[in-house]
Amino acid sequence: MIDLYTWSTPNGRKISILLEEMNVPYKVININIKNNEQFSKEFSLISPSNKIPAIVDNENGKSIFESGAIMLYLAIKYNKFISENDYWEIMKWFFFQISQVGPFLGQAHQYLYYNPGKSKYAEEKSKNYVKLVYETLDNRLSKSIYLGNKYSIADIATWPWIARYEMHKVDIKKYNNVLRWYKLISKKPKVIKGYNVSGIHQDIPQP
Amino acid sequence: MIDLYTWSTPNGRKISILLEEMNVPYKVININIKNNEQFSKEFSLISPSNKIPAIVDNENGKSIFESGAIMLYLAIKYNKFISENDYWEIMKWFFFQISQVGPFLGQAHQYLYYNPGKSKYAEEKSKNYVKLVYETLDNRLSKSIYLGNKYSIADIATWPWIARYEMHKVDIKKYNNVLRWYKLISKKPKVIKGYNVSGIHQDIPQP
Repeated sequence: MIDLYTWSTPNGRKISILLEEMNVPYKVININIKNNEQFSKEFSLISPSNKIPAIVDNENGKSIFESGAIMLYLAIKYNKFISENDYWEIMKWFFFQISQVGPFLGQAHQYLYYNPGKSKYAEEKSKNYVKLVYETLDNRLSKSIYLGNKYSIADIATWPWIARYEMHKVDIKKYNNVLRWYKLISKKPKVIKGYNVSGIHQDIPQP
Repeated sequence: MIDLYTWSTPNGRKISILLEEMNVPYKVININIKNNEQFSKEFSLISPSNKIPAIVDNENGKSIFESGAIMLYLAIKYNKFISENDYWEIMKWFFFQISQVGPFLGQAHQYLYYNPGKSKYAEEKSKNYVKLVYETLDNRLSKSIYLGNKYSIADIATWPWIARYEMHKVDIKKYNNVLRWYKLISKKPKVIKGYNVSGIHQDIPQP
């Protein structure tokens, strides 16, 4: 049994979707970030940067923070959504999510969606970062059904971020390949189930 | 032999330092980002997000982009700076570098160092991100000599970013544990050698 400390954010959803897809039993512990519960002393012991998600694996007592480390841990432990043949193809796009998709789209949420009008300069920068992310993904997905050849942790890590396309102030319909991939994953029953396990219930956006 | 496409940036230096520490032969191919060489058609084939570093492993023809994926690839291939016992302890801090240290300090470079005065709002946000990164690292390093118990890819990934502390507008001397760790790694001969293999020669900052 995995204890999952989470909330309804893209990084939180990565883990609940992965756990659902793997059919691994888990218990959700809500960390309400609207109430700053991530700063509690108890949670700091598991997640020293005070960010959700984090997990505790009750089979061995290991606690893991950082959504990337958690996904890699689960994929290796259960040997799913990662494959020997495509390992590095998956890893390239998995790390692209961790270092660029998440941080750049996260900035867009801050400057374009939550705080518009506070900094024209940062908004312009964010728009360029968003464009870079969508163009890079679209180009990749013009050559491959999924990011790493087969459906993998690279897709499961990236999809919950693209599910916030409305916050990115882009027309997702202009990115045909991203749109096709987004819709394909949106229909997976385990994705639908893993999307709403914690926090505020939201419908999956349907472009 | 590894072909390393790189330049004198924190992400570029991660890989040259790791290769030096592992005693793996490599050839440096300069991608001058001041001249936008990362946008060439040739380089796009290796690095589809047009960022350095990237590698080609001539033993098997594999090309890898994303500094995190490259480090993991090299650490696993040569079985160095990662260890079975401390694997997940290392991974937590390695991913913390990839998803937070790099992106947050990268924002600080943009808003606090290269473009001061263009957005007070983004500067304030950047200062808070910088504080979060330094405090989290300092707290961790108050309990451990290195980030993941032993000297590992987590340290080699993080150190070149902290080597830009002057751009972060923090007093590194206020973070005793980060300072101790920074100085310890600064003295390693392979770090000194790997720091300047490409781009603009810079002395390692000495606080």
